[in-house]
Amino acid sequence: MKKFLLLSIFLAGAAISSQAQDSVQIRRFYDEALVKGQCYDNLRYLCKKIGQRLSGSAGAAKSVEWSKKLMEGYGFDRVYLQEVMVPHWVRGAKEQAYIMDGKNKIAVPVAALGMSVGTPASGITANIVEVRSLKELDALGESVIKGKIVFFNGPFDQRFIETGAGYGAAGIQRFAGPAAAAKYGAVGAIVRSITPALDDYPHTGGTVYAESGKKIPAAAISTLAANKLSNMLKLRKLPLIKFYLKQSCQTLPDVKSYNVIGEIKGSENPNKFITVGGHLDSWDLAEGAHDDGTGVMQSVEVLRIIKATGYKPKNSIRAVFFMNEENGHKGGIKYTEQAAADKEEHIAAIETDEGGFTPRGFSFEDASPKFLKEINKSWKGLLEPYEADRLTAGGSGTDIGPLKEAIPSIKLIGFRPDSQRYFDIHHTPNDVFENVNKRELELGAAAITALVYLIDQHGLNF
Amino acid sequence: MKKFLLLSIFLAGAAISSQAQDSVQIRRFYDEALVKGQCYDNLRYLCKKIGQRLSGSAGAAKSVEWSKKLMEGYGFDRVYLQEVMVPHWVRGAKEQAYIMDGKNKIAVPVAALGMSVGTPASGITANIVEVRSLKELDALGESVIKGKIVFFNGPFDQRFIETGAGYGAAGIQRFAGPAAAAKYGAVGAIVRSITPALDDYPHTGGTVYAESGKKIPAAAISTLAANKLSNMLKLRKLPLIKFYLKQSCQTLPDVKSYNVIGEIKGSENPNKFITVGGHLDSWDLAEGAHDDGTGVMQSVEVLRIIKATGYKPKNSIRAVFFMNEENGHKGGIKYTEQAAADKEEHIAAIETDEGGFTPRGFSFEDASPKFLKEINKSWKGLLEPYEADRLTAGGSGTDIGPLKEAIPSIKLIGFRPDSQRYFDIHHTPNDVFENVNKRELELGAAAITALVYLIDQHGLNF
Repeated sequence: MKKFLLLSIFLAGAAISSQAQDSVQIRRFYDEALVKGQCYDNLRYLCKKIGQRLSGSAGAAKSVEWSKKLMEGYGFDRVYLQEVMVPHWVRGAKEQAYIMDGKNKIAVPVAALGMSVGTPASGITANIVEVRSLKELDALGESVIKGKIVFFNGPFDQRFIETGAGYGAAGIQRFAGPAAAAKYGAVGAIVRSITPALDDYPHTGGTVYAESGKKIPAAAISTLAANKLSNMLKLRKLPLIKFYLKQSCQTLPDVKSYNVIGEIKGSENPNKFITVGGHLDSWDLAEGAHDDGTGVMQSVEVLRIIKATGYKPKNSIRAVFFMNEENGHKGGIKYTEQAAADKEEHIAAIETDEGGFTPRGFSFEDASPKFLKEINKSWKGLLEPYEADRLTAGGSGTDIGPLKEAIPSIKLIGFRPDSQRYFDIHHTPNDVFENVNKRELELGAAAITALVYLIDQHGLNF
Repeated sequence: MKKFLLLSIFLAGAAISSQAQDSVQIRRFYDEALVKGQCYDNLRYLCKKIGQRLSGSAGAAKSVEWSKKLMEGYGFDRVYLQEVMVPHWVRGAKEQAYIMDGKNKIAVPVAALGMSVGTPASGITANIVEVRSLKELDALGESVIKGKIVFFNGPFDQRFIETGAGYGAAGIQRFAGPAAAAKYGAVGAIVRSITPALDDYPHTGGTVYAESGKKIPAAAISTLAANKLSNMLKLRKLPLIKFYLKQSCQTLPDVKSYNVIGEIKGSENPNKFITVGGHLDSWDLAEGAHDDGTGVMQSVEVLRIIKATGYKPKNSIRAVFFMNEENGHKGGIKYTEQAAADKEEHIAAIETDEGGFTPRGFSFEDASPKFLKEINKSWKGLLEPYEADRLTAGGSGTDIGPLKEAIPSIKLIGFRPDSQRYFDIHHTPNDVFENVNKRELELGAAAITALVYLIDQHGLNF
């Protein structure tokens, strides 16, 4: 009994001392990030000197080259490119769209959806059918839809506390709506922008056609224009109102591109990896600041902070700038294929692709109640002083997603910043550097570094 | 034993059912706020149609009148004005400041501190002494300071996770620096803007002179200008660099103004109050959007949500728009005096004056460890789905502060939104409606309503 008691005291002491050490180390990471952080200046360069980086574009190529140099400059143990073929979709000339109300022609803010086909050079004009869901579309069927432009006007449900949930629910219209409309003989599709904001910006984003199905032109219109159109349709008889859409986007042959990878070698387990990543490509309408310039700049900052603070990880830590998250996910797929081919062991992968806002925590894919209970018991207290302690079950990210099947032992983790502002600017001309806050970005980099450290030290076998 | 067991089961059942009922009610508040919220549109009116509302100004008078009408329109049980005399400080013509470097004259973004005296019409020119704290000032003393302009350049400590802590630490220079410098014979004081941001905006804010001491002109300069001046002072000999400041601000006779108060009468205890408030006055450089338009608009929204959802509070709930928080606190003092004179019982007061950003929780003044433990045990789970569940010890607010001494049984509570962006725009021309996010504002109103409800239902006797 006495021996047992002594052992308990010893173990308790060891646990306290380990917690205290973790606490000191995490504080060190935060100080480095907040006082000597470099991710904000790096992001400024990426946004202002390179700008949009849609897969296959000159901007994407330039960003690969610059990112590799940036990592080399930091003196990581290994910096390399991972070749990957990516789709090359181009928007072409600025789109045009009008509500044609008899003799009136009302301009509509519009942006072709990524991977959409263009219209004929003279555009298309057709009657409009408004639906609020794919179910409504199915209920109307071919007899109503054929020859029309389908107007997907399902609203963003404001009741969700995290906007990502609202985006997921309404997003199905954009991902799958145009393909479904094409099936019923629609000649085009316009989609209400997927955002909680009421404004005049169209939000682009990918749509997916059926492999063998017909491809019809698809575009996003602003939420204010969607409201106006919907009101007009309510007030007037349908045939009086038509919609005109002209866009010249097209998909060119695939292009060779790269994931950019930096690595700090593990001192004990060099072939075991913890990956932190975001995507380097962006949509073409702005600078891809929050989506996902912040994510890649945080990822490299994690490695920089580790080096700058002199922490020697046991396992290898990788920053991965994935290519082509927005319209093909080819970079993520490639990374998984290569990891599997090289028989790498992967402990965890963390994706940061929800904007550079104030951290709130992390979500763990397929986390069991036991896992959640124990990780919270062990680590929540360490992250609480930094208000980044919401450790929940939930999604991770598109780029690291494929790792799960290839390496079943891996834990996939999503960095979760505050979600309120993200979808206001997401995929619009407003996704620019000026909308990123320096401290919020840095706090995110520090929070991810803290989690990488805890995983490196203690593993994830809860 | 059996009886005890049955009683336990019954009590546990009652507790669960009460929690379930609370949970449903809170969800109802959030739905109302997020789907039918009115605070964003009300804030737009306050910012865009009325604008700056410095105590004693025409804007302040207009805002009182409009606020009363707004509350009357909502049909609260009682809406009234509470008269209070307030200081009337005016900025006068736009300030001018230059670094005088031999023949070079470098313009400096400058704003007089609130309650500062002006300079002579021709301005003042003097040598500069840079200090980074009041302690440094004391160490230099009269022999060095006399006849100079003291340049308070203490930096904002970025290591604090909540920026309010950094503001408090650096802020002492602005509150107390000019009075301390005057004591040593300084002819003026310039203060580095209290903000984590590095930009070209001067941040105004109040300074406090000693009652019987000399008053010297005091102004804030932008952080970039402060860095430039500091670098120049390092590189060149002191006498070569002088500073020129011209400002025509002055304090006019006190003006009659008002707190604006709306009330829903308690069904059980009409003379017991829960107060929710912010301040209606603002600095004069912008629209006082986050400081504190968001706070007052959230306060009235709490009452509106309670009414709209049909909740009948047991105790009386008050929304108070305090006047003169920024440069005198006269409204807060008046509210306390009147409450004490009327022998009102006050359960709690909640102040929202830290910006309309995403809620993170609430801080409770003088909260004991036992109180914190129990309130977290009882209520954290109810607020967790809304991510507003950080219930901590901490400050409340300037306006409700005086209540503590007058009514010792009261609990003072601060609404705590995310703090990262607040001090970037605080007291600058950037504190405008466009920098407020609709959902963030609404989530705050809903969180405060939830807390008011829980206090109304269960009290705060933890």
